[in-house]
Amino acid sequence: MTSLPRADRATESEKPRLPADHPGVNELFALLAYGEVAAFYRLADEARMAPDLRGRISMASMAAAEMGHYELLRDALQRRGVDVLPAMSKYASALDDYHRLTTPSTWLEALVKTYVGDALAADLYLEIADALPDEVADVVRAALAETGHSQFVVAEVRAAVTSSARQRSRLALWSRRLLGEAITQAQYVLAEHDELVDLVTAGTNGLTQLSAFFDRLQHTHDQRMRELGLL
Amino acid sequence: MTSLPRADRATESEKPRLPADHPGVNELFALLAYGEVAAFYRLADEARMAPDLRGRISMASMAAAEMGHYELLRDALQRRGVDVLPAMSKYASALDDYHRLTTPSTWLEALVKTYVGDALAADLYLEIADALPDEVADVVRAALAETGHSQFVVAEVRAAVTSSARQRSRLALWSRRLLGEAITQAQYVLAEHDELVDLVTAGTNGLTQLSAFFDRLQHTHDQRMRELGLL
Repeated sequence: MTSLPRADRATESEKPRLPADHPGVNELFALLAYGEVAAFYRLADEARMAPDLRGRISMASMAAAEMGHYELLRDALQRRGVDVLPAMSKYASALDDYHRLTTPSTWLEALVKTYVGDALAADLYLEIADALPDEVADVVRAALAETGHSQFVVAEVRAAVTSSARQRSRLALWSRRLLGEAITQAQYVLAEHDELVDLVTAGTNGLTQLSAFFDRLQHTHDQRMRELGLL
Repeated sequence: MTSLPRADRATESEKPRLPADHPGVNELFALLAYGEVAAFYRLADEARMAPDLRGRISMASMAAAEMGHYELLRDALQRRGVDVLPAMSKYASALDDYHRLTTPSTWLEALVKTYVGDALAADLYLEIADALPDEVADVVRAALAETGHSQFVVAEVRAAVTSSARQRSRLALWSRRLLGEAITQAQYVLAEHDELVDLVTAGTNGLTQLSAFFDRLQHTHDQRMRELGLL
């Protein structure tokens, strides 16, 4: 299993830590929790396109790992006294929209979405976690741990795009669309949840940093496209 | 979490043990492994009928637990030198047929299927495991451990059938159909796999015992229908 490149983050010293009881923390955990459940159902759905039992099993294992992460977040929310289901439901529309707008039409598109989409989500969340006290950041990091199946995706996508230039440009476009939709939905979520904006901009200088943050996402997205043979 | 009633089994002294390298053991593990993956996808599908996020999460957690069981069986098969995917594929048609022929049309039917169907499968497999050496039987028992969600099902089904006699008779019929299809598919599997028949009949006196075995399944099925308020 390789470790995916993550967005470069500001050094520790530049970032003041937020308090663990910052209201954005509950929102972040609830957003992540809904994201895990949505990812579970998305993987289970997209596995329908798998060409064989091996692919179906890989997708099912990845989906099961998402539920393990969900349980970590649910437990953390309960320890913080949050009523989990209503808190999660606030993020249903943004995450469901992302998945609806990026429904793959082939097995290779499903694989690329798994790889790029999950890594992007991890970037978004880990970037935010860096501004948080360790006790909170550790929950986020554990919940986003690699599921151990990315090598399977890389090998299959690289093989397909090496043998077909058409597949390659098709999947490169697809990958850009995934980034675009993810950023759109992230902006919707931020626009509706000031507590989360506080988390993202807690580092140094507010909006300047928000724009640098989206630049970093673009940069690591390119690294991942290269890893898949798409750039 | 209640422990479900299991089929009463013959006492230890009556049953000679089969050797751990009996060829039926690999077949049993492969059958169970395919069953876990099929159950994963069935639960993920049927969760579509859940009336709310809570139901969808419960189904997803149960599905994730199935994959944990699958991984136990896969590891055991690999330790026994078996090529896992081809071994599993032999059981695809019987298990896929069972699920196709018992596709629920309502959320309550899905819940009853989860509860009754999983318990029936557990009976079938544990009954067989009893004739096996502990090292083998332990893998089967671990792979079929309760997933901890059955209380959720019992409470929801009981509430529905208490308030509606029509629901009650409808679900009682459904439950009988589940038993019928399960026994039909079990007979198909046994007819095609002599090594598995050896396992089931290893106890004492062959076919007499096979018929007693199906009688015991019927008996514990009735106990479960009672638990759900359906009898």
